[in-house]
Amino acid sequence: MMLPFEPSEFRDRIAKTKQRMEHAGIDVLVVANQSNQYYLTGYAGWSDYVPQAAIISLEENDPRFIVRDQDVPCAYHSCFMDRSLIYTLPESYVGYADRSGWDYIAGLLNEWGHGKRRLGIELQTPQITAHVFRLLQRALPNASFVDATNLVTWLRTIKSPREIAYMREAARIADKAVQTAIDAIAPGVRECDVAAKVMAAQCAGLPEFGGDRPKSPAMPSGKKTDSPHLSWTDAPYATGTPINIELGGFRYRYVAGLSRSIHVGPPPARLKDLHAATLDGMLAVFDAVKPGLTCEEVEKVFRAATKTHDVEKNSRVGYSIGIDWLEGTASIVPGDKTVLQANMTFHLMLGMWQRDWGYTLSETFRVTEKGCETLASLPRELFVK
Amino acid sequence: MMLPFEPSEFRDRIAKTKQRMEHAGIDVLVVANQSNQYYLTGYAGWSDYVPQAAIISLEENDPRFIVRDQDVPCAYHSCFMDRSLIYTLPESYVGYADRSGWDYIAGLLNEWGHGKRRLGIELQTPQITAHVFRLLQRALPNASFVDATNLVTWLRTIKSPREIAYMREAARIADKAVQTAIDAIAPGVRECDVAAKVMAAQCAGLPEFGGDRPKSPAMPSGKKTDSPHLSWTDAPYATGTPINIELGGFRYRYVAGLSRSIHVGPPPARLKDLHAATLDGMLAVFDAVKPGLTCEEVEKVFRAATKTHDVEKNSRVGYSIGIDWLEGTASIVPGDKTVLQANMTFHLMLGMWQRDWGYTLSETFRVTEKGCETLASLPRELFVK
Repeated sequence: MMLPFEPSEFRDRIAKTKQRMEHAGIDVLVVANQSNQYYLTGYAGWSDYVPQAAIISLEENDPRFIVRDQDVPCAYHSCFMDRSLIYTLPESYVGYADRSGWDYIAGLLNEWGHGKRRLGIELQTPQITAHVFRLLQRALPNASFVDATNLVTWLRTIKSPREIAYMREAARIADKAVQTAIDAIAPGVRECDVAAKVMAAQCAGLPEFGGDRPKSPAMPSGKKTDSPHLSWTDAPYATGTPINIELGGFRYRYVAGLSRSIHVGPPPARLKDLHAATLDGMLAVFDAVKPGLTCEEVEKVFRAATKTHDVEKNSRVGYSIGIDWLEGTASIVPGDKTVLQANMTFHLMLGMWQRDWGYTLSETFRVTEKGCETLASLPRELFVK
Repeated sequence: MMLPFEPSEFRDRIAKTKQRMEHAGIDVLVVANQSNQYYLTGYAGWSDYVPQAAIISLEENDPRFIVRDQDVPCAYHSCFMDRSLIYTLPESYVGYADRSGWDYIAGLLNEWGHGKRRLGIELQTPQITAHVFRLLQRALPNASFVDATNLVTWLRTIKSPREIAYMREAARIADKAVQTAIDAIAPGVRECDVAAKVMAAQCAGLPEFGGDRPKSPAMPSGKKTDSPHLSWTDAPYATGTPINIELGGFRYRYVAGLSRSIHVGPPPARLKDLHAATLDGMLAVFDAVKPGLTCEEVEKVFRAATKTHDVEKNSRVGYSIGIDWLEGTASIVPGDKTVLQANMTFHLMLGMWQRDWGYTLSETFRVTEKGCETLASLPRELFVK
């Protein structure tokens, strides 16, 4: 299997991870977050509902990866490291209430001489539940634990040329998928049948390259356009219905998010006004973005541009995006002092949710040396069907 | 919006939850697991990447639900309770490294007089990370905490008539989606283009009812049929290629899992033999299943039937299935003494992963009063294209 990145790129990421470990006083990093595992080892299985861990030690070159017996072949097919660095977690630890795969992982850490070391653990990642951390503390009583939740995720905020190439491809898939929704929506067509075409577009991608496993689009309609996170239904669209589409194009797990709103029949004035205000805000942001600006300053630009329209948004207007969507680091919100740097990528997500109606417009952008590059090319219209 | 269940069904679930709380010495249950929230309140948002909680108190009738401001409308549209029981978690808690929505939730628990009570917390659910539990312990120093991870999930194992109706519909969608894969696979067709058709079938469902937001199918091919959890690629199928399909049909979030293997061109003898052995094991299980049998006894039946073919499987052969797939309770493995009861539902997942090849066959079944009902109707063949 061709890996999406060269071994040298993985090793560069690991070298940077080790620098951060030294800075944070960590000897051994236990990576439980699946997106971080993918970033550091290439492991491409979707299997983190059972325990698995990548182990980075300052004393070793390449990571070790511990994974359930059943998923060892996934690791052989996708990790850049030598197979001798893939360790089997026995199936006898899977599916039992009285034992956890983390007991076994802790056992290996002891065996490898890490029992008295300073261990970095992602204490805010879903895999490290309260229960798992208790097990680790019990099994490694002489280790000290350091919260390493965002050690790797901050590294991920700045993308390499290859990562950006994938995100550009992802954006082309996102363009196609949103256009597919616009084409398919019509009075009498069921929401689930539009979803079917949209997800097909996400998977198929383009003739030159296919789409990766996608997340389902959000496509609330009617009064539910006030709700960002509901699923579609199997009801048909009627004339007079607004629809908000938010979706991602996916390429080797890298995402470009994209949102547009669509109206079946002539849109009401308030929706046209909200579109105009939001678009002004978006253009003002794209005009302002450049290295050196902080996230909170970007938010201020949006706030000022929309305020002249008498429009306010009380939730964040964007966040760092890359592998598997949300990176969980920088947010475009008041108070976030993250300084923009070249090759950071953000989803500028302008969800203008009111009560009983709403409007969405979003784009994924890259900070360039002097400004910003938006990855998608779909017109920024309020689409009317 | 029509809810998928009557308020009386939600209230019945809550009454049973309270019985279990009393038994476990819990005054107040803090439900963080999103599938459990859906089960108890109807909340249908896909928003658990930020903190949200359903609160069940022995002293109150209906649950309270605390959710991010942005998602309050999701709750209004989908929860069965009165709107006065939906509480807003301010946006100023979302997207910041120095505070968590759980601080706010803990504040409400204190305000509601729960600060000295016995609180049930799902310590093994992804939302309750080590970090979150630390915050809760700090903010509620006089509360006592009881692990309530599987309190609600065990209730979920036995399905109501309405839940079973949805799972039967889900199985019809799964039938159609796997058949779609069989029809679409051919030499020269890209894997991602087959995935596109399969996901379209999962979303569209049937003319009588649509599909809900699906999980992506697993459909490894060639040597990767040894790997259950890899994504598809954009390479074309060649003659001589085996493919394992594992997917779910989804209906109001209830899942029926279904797997089949397909071979492009005449299959090798070893694959036909493994199919025959696995099918024998499956039929032996379906013949044996009835209330009163334990999960480990079911596993033994499969093991015995396949052993006569000289075939062994070292991972579990099934698990309880319902909302959002895996319930995380009963497993069909050696040592699991769960007693089968009528209206339990299982995914009998016979993934026979070898090194460099493999075969899969699975069905979702319901335990009936006297035996078992399989929900899908696709032939149990090794399909040849």
